Amino acid sequence: MKQHNYKLLIAYDGTCYSGWQLQSNATSIQSLIQNALETILREKVTLIGSGRTDAGVHALGQIAHFKCDSEINLYKLLGSLNGILPRDIRILEATKVSLDFHAQRSAISKTYHYNLYLDKILDPFQRLYVWHIYDRHCDISLLKEATSLFVGTHDFTSFANEAHAGSASINPIRTIDSIEIIEKPSGLCLSFKGNGFLYKMVRNIVGTVVEVAAKQRSLNEIATIFSAKDRRTAGQAAPPQGLFLMQVEYPTSYFL
Amino acid sequence: MKQHNYKLLIAYDGTCYSGWQLQSNATSIQSLIQNALETILREKVTLIGSGRTDAGVHALGQIAHFKCDSEINLYKLLGSLNGILPRDIRILEATKVSLDFHAQRSAISKTYHYNLYLDKILDPFQRLYVWHIYDRHCDISLLKEATSLFVGTHDFTSFANEAHAGSASINPIRTIDSIEIIEKPSGLCLSFKGNGFLYKMVRNIVGTVVEVAAKQRSLNEIATIFSAKDRRTAGQAAPPQGLFLMQVEYPTSYFL
Repeated sequence: MKQHNYKLLIAYDGTCYSGWQLQSNATSIQSLIQNALETILREKVTLIGSGRTDAGVHALGQIAHFKCDSEINLYKLLGSLNGILPRDIRILEATKVSLDFHAQRSAISKTYHYNLYLDKILDPFQRLYVWHIYDRHCDISLLKEATSLFVGTHDFTSFANEAHAGSASINPIRTIDSIEIIEKPSGLCLSFKGNGFLYKMVRNIVGTVVEVAAKQRSLNEIATIFSAKDRRTAGQAAPPQGLFLMQVEYPTSYFL
Repeated sequence: MKQHNYKLLIAYDGTCYSGWQLQSNATSIQSLIQNALETILREKVTLIGSGRTDAGVHALGQIAHFKCDSEINLYKLLGSLNGILPRDIRILEATKVSLDFHAQRSAISKTYHYNLYLDKILDPFQRLYVWHIYDRHCDISLLKEATSLFVGTHDFTSFANEAHAGSASINPIRTIDSIEIIEKPSGLCLSFKGNGFLYKMVRNIVGTVVEVAAKQRSLNEIATIFSAKDRRTAGQAAPPQGLFLMQVEYPTSYFL
């Protein structure tokens, strides 16, 4: 029985990875960090993230936890981890948490950002961090109206891709607390906050509202898509590189 | 005798290139744009930049010009060029200029930015665009004093690497109009404006002032380095990825 539980705050540029969790033969972020921990701690550990992010998706606030036998000098651990890990993955904080803390199951809310780039000519420094939708019209007031229809508690089946084995049993009811639209110099950032998101849910919502903003789909269709409970009725998923996991919140009772 | 002269405003992420000009077997930005122009215009063109940038150095405001036989639809050219070029190179503007405009020889000033990242843990999204000097102390007031010694007209021989064949004949006297230090959330941006810069001059100055700010070298040494007229007396060159060519200015008389 492992005696200590630790929480990591992690930022990564997902461009070069298969995602948080192993999805193909490419390297996963989770396995790189877990291997680095095992090298440093000289014991087997299992690193559990708050949720997976897909290939090309980024994080500024991913959370993971691991249990181990030994009491750790966290200052040293942070230096050693960042020394071993590639520079596109950084551990920002390491803290001790109560034994019952679980990065996925203890989470009470998550915030994702999705960046749309609207100018005709893409800033080359943003190419890996935005969806460039130069080729279609984007009516911002329609975009705002469309996104507002997703706020609240809904059955999001039509906006969720089937994940993996056993996914059929996942409850498709989720609550989105807010979707803020933040105007930026060359585009928009859609900030989603909710109690949990289904597989590819944010990207499927963004893909659908962008079709509404481009007048390729009417605002009324969104209610129809919700009631169809069929992924095929919604829009195409927005590409991964515009998505950032920004923050995961937990009850403070877990923090020592 | 070519009858038309055109100017391009170019932004690029230099991470994946050998630099503006061919320096090894890697691809150069200049050759990619020149080849794209030849494909579109169906004639031989020579693209001349305001100056070379090294491998890993970036640009938000590189300028180049080329002459050609045919009158060009510039709106179409911009779309075609950006369609052919990789997404880390973007042509921001194409304009017609007078026949005597020369991207390098007509320039009256250039502005470069050099980004220093001072926080202990590097933001993974900035890793390709800053110099992370976490391992040394950085006394910002010393840094400011040291940089101020470079403003004005000096013989910059000690801060110039020998470029290539024929470089011995280059006049080493240059005037730096200003060096502004802009404070940013996790570091500093040093903004250099001057009438021209010798090969690796900005990176050599930055490397030297960072050594002064880290107290590895005294402020008084800078005068000694200037008078030595010997590159070996100055500090190590700062790494390329922190450097951005921001702007090149020309007399407005060239613009039609």
